[in-house]
Amino acid sequence: MYPKSMLQLIEELKKLPGVGIKTAERYAFEIISRPKEEIEDFIIALDQVRKNLQYCHRCGNLSEQDLCDICLDNSRDQHLICVVQDPKDVIAMEKTQQFHGVYHVLHGVISTFKGVLPEDINVSSLIERVNEETSEVIIATNPTIEGETTALYIAKKLESKTQNVTRLASGLPMGGHLDYADEMTLIRAIEGRKKI
Amino acid sequence: MYPKSMLQLIEELKKLPGVGIKTAERYAFEIISRPKEEIEDFIIALDQVRKNLQYCHRCGNLSEQDLCDICLDNSRDQHLICVVQDPKDVIAMEKTQQFHGVYHVLHGVISTFKGVLPEDINVSSLIERVNEETSEVIIATNPTIEGETTALYIAKKLESKTQNVTRLASGLPMGGHLDYADEMTLIRAIEGRKKI
Repeated sequence: MYPKSMLQLIEELKKLPGVGIKTAERYAFEIISRPKEEIEDFIIALDQVRKNLQYCHRCGNLSEQDLCDICLDNSRDQHLICVVQDPKDVIAMEKTQQFHGVYHVLHGVISTFKGVLPEDINVSSLIERVNEETSEVIIATNPTIEGETTALYIAKKLESKTQNVTRLASGLPMGGHLDYADEMTLIRAIEGRKKI
Repeated sequence: MYPKSMLQLIEELKKLPGVGIKTAERYAFEIISRPKEEIEDFIIALDQVRKNLQYCHRCGNLSEQDLCDICLDNSRDQHLICVVQDPKDVIAMEKTQQFHGVYHVLHGVISTFKGVLPEDINVSSLIERVNEETSEVIIATNPTIEGETTALYIAKKLESKTQNVTRLASGLPMGGHLDYADEMTLIRAIEGRKKI
């Protein structure tokens, strides 16, 4: 019923995560109502990403050159490495403005359930990268079963290389309520309690 | 913090209706995780829409040629015209498979509140188009204040040209509940009641 090009655009929009046919149609109608130049801007943005965006050869973070801005930044501590699952976790960490080291992006976690093996994620380059100069490796994978498994795997692999492998603290989220916290979170909060 | 091309893509995705920064980031991360050829498909779809999609010169419906498929379809009753607000209303009508006439798409409704005047919508071409051969004009604008105003305006303008201007029935939606219906809908349902 739609003209072919419209159908094609709806199909493409439906591929976005969480977007069903109704939302895709809504997006498509909004796009076609724009002036041609604005559709052109959208095309250019996609094209730039397609052409220029890559992963940093050292850390796996998003980059437009061989090495990302963080790896190239000499004012950052290149011996302090924070290991994260995804590039978006780098953004989350950077927003805190509390971390001045560099990153290593795994692009996934080990998962027996999903059949993701250590060799399927960006972990061997981390093992290679860590050396006697590395001051600390902070493992910041998510506090899920897969994240924990991956953290333990990495800690084990790095045993011979550095004594200083740490894990982000688990516990109650700030602003959260004790009675809403799940059991595991509460257990972690008790285990990790600190003197005040 | 994001590379420039990524930021630009997030900006573009944020322009989609109802999409905020978090959703735009989620869409962008999904897009960049695709193989390059799939991003290319998205680009092509946008480009095709930009280049080929236009409005039918006769009825204002979406089309890839001067006249849309419905206007060109001789098996349809070209003297029975259904007037709708938007191209997506044509899709809704077509889904019923009950209407075998042609359309006229207004691309809006008269609205004193939003300052939309009759000359701002595709109505003069409708007046021109209706002639003694027209068997019926069904006005299918939405049952809102603006839709009703527009329907009355069109009916008035067509007075001298045809006696057969109708309006879609208003009343309780099928599957709806009386106690959930708003007052205006119930009043319309009572006014429009039919012998069974």
